[in-house]
Amino acid sequence: MKNAIILCSGGLDSVTAAYKVKDEYSKLKFLFFDYGQRAVKEEEKCCKEIAKRLEAEFIKVELKWLGEISTAMLNKEGEVKENNEDIKNWWVPARNSVFLVNALAFAESEFLKNKEKYDVIIGIKDEGDEHMADTTPEFVKKVNELAKEGTQDGDYEVVAPLIELDKTDVIKLGKELKVPFELTYSCYIENGPCGKCLNCVLRKNSFNLLRIEDKSYAL
Amino acid sequence: MKNAIILCSGGLDSVTAAYKVKDEYSKLKFLFFDYGQRAVKEEEKCCKEIAKRLEAEFIKVELKWLGEISTAMLNKEGEVKENNEDIKNWWVPARNSVFLVNALAFAESEFLKNKEKYDVIIGIKDEGDEHMADTTPEFVKKVNELAKEGTQDGDYEVVAPLIELDKTDVIKLGKELKVPFELTYSCYIENGPCGKCLNCVLRKNSFNLLRIEDKSYAL
Repeated sequence: MKNAIILCSGGLDSVTAAYKVKDEYSKLKFLFFDYGQRAVKEEEKCCKEIAKRLEAEFIKVELKWLGEISTAMLNKEGEVKENNEDIKNWWVPARNSVFLVNALAFAESEFLKNKEKYDVIIGIKDEGDEHMADTTPEFVKKVNELAKEGTQDGDYEVVAPLIELDKTDVIKLGKELKVPFELTYSCYIENGPCGKCLNCVLRKNSFNLLRIEDKSYAL
Repeated sequence: MKNAIILCSGGLDSVTAAYKVKDEYSKLKFLFFDYGQRAVKEEEKCCKEIAKRLEAEFIKVELKWLGEISTAMLNKEGEVKENNEDIKNWWVPARNSVFLVNALAFAESEFLKNKEKYDVIIGIKDEGDEHMADTTPEFVKKVNELAKEGTQDGDYEVVAPLIELDKTDVIKLGKELKVPFELTYSCYIENGPCGKCLNCVLRKNSFNLLRIEDKSYAL
């Protein structure tokens, strides 16, 4: 049985991805990235709580430079106003590529040190027409092709278990899997949920559409 | 005219790559990675000196975590003995993938901030049969395919100007380009060159083969 490195931000998607795959793997390690995002404290708290529940190891990785070069509102101070749903406002340069390649380096390190094989799990989903570039099946395919060429034995895999699901599908799946939604934090801003950022709007709309109550996001 | 982000370690290959492309680009930025490598001080000094000569901006990026998870001897204390040429001893997990994806994030950031386009230059070369996985034309191709999928406009390119050259070719080219070899530092260890690590052995052998004196490496 293989092991899993799960990229976990403490948000609804990555936590649901963790619940979906948890029984398919032996050891679980949560990789949490601190790239100077405004919601880092809230995200870390959620991620640690879920890690505890799933008996996963929590590992924090500092990628401060990514935050320094980021043009995204989630890395900048200032008030978030309504109608900020343009994804360009929230795009962190090459973020999922940076996260995944770091996770692949970690997977390779674990194999070289302990001869244990890890898959890398990422909770990206189908975001529809207006999607971030690095959330598509083609993107995952290209990362996997790079993983083959860029590691010594080439035997590492990135798995995106939610890639075919849209936000409402993810919530339905999470409900089936008894994901504690109230412990997840999707907001891009500290002291949230703010209800105005892209992630808050998308989460709220999807719960409303499904007529499911989102306790943590009762705004 | 485009600009260039040049991955520069201060070693012979990356410095020769910089000299080869310097006139093809407008602005030059040197990206130097601190991943806890033993030779970081020596490398940084060399990289800064070359940046000054080429009027390039010097930018240092901390990737401490890569050093922490690395299994390579260049990240570990201890004496380096003879006959350590097995590349597995010197392999840092997924290193060039991590470097290049960070550089691509930086290129995208520069475009989003300043509307300036940058290529990413890496000084990898043909290492023959016993090569690190992430030094091949196929590897560069896969990084470029990922760059298309993993950035918003997909318009970023990684260029490896030495990819067809072996070590002796690189030295010959460097000589033509008047690269100040004596300012470059290829050794994996601090207070070097040690003469024993993989890089020292390969550099020494290539200079000997060409009957060119390597002043900085006169051991």
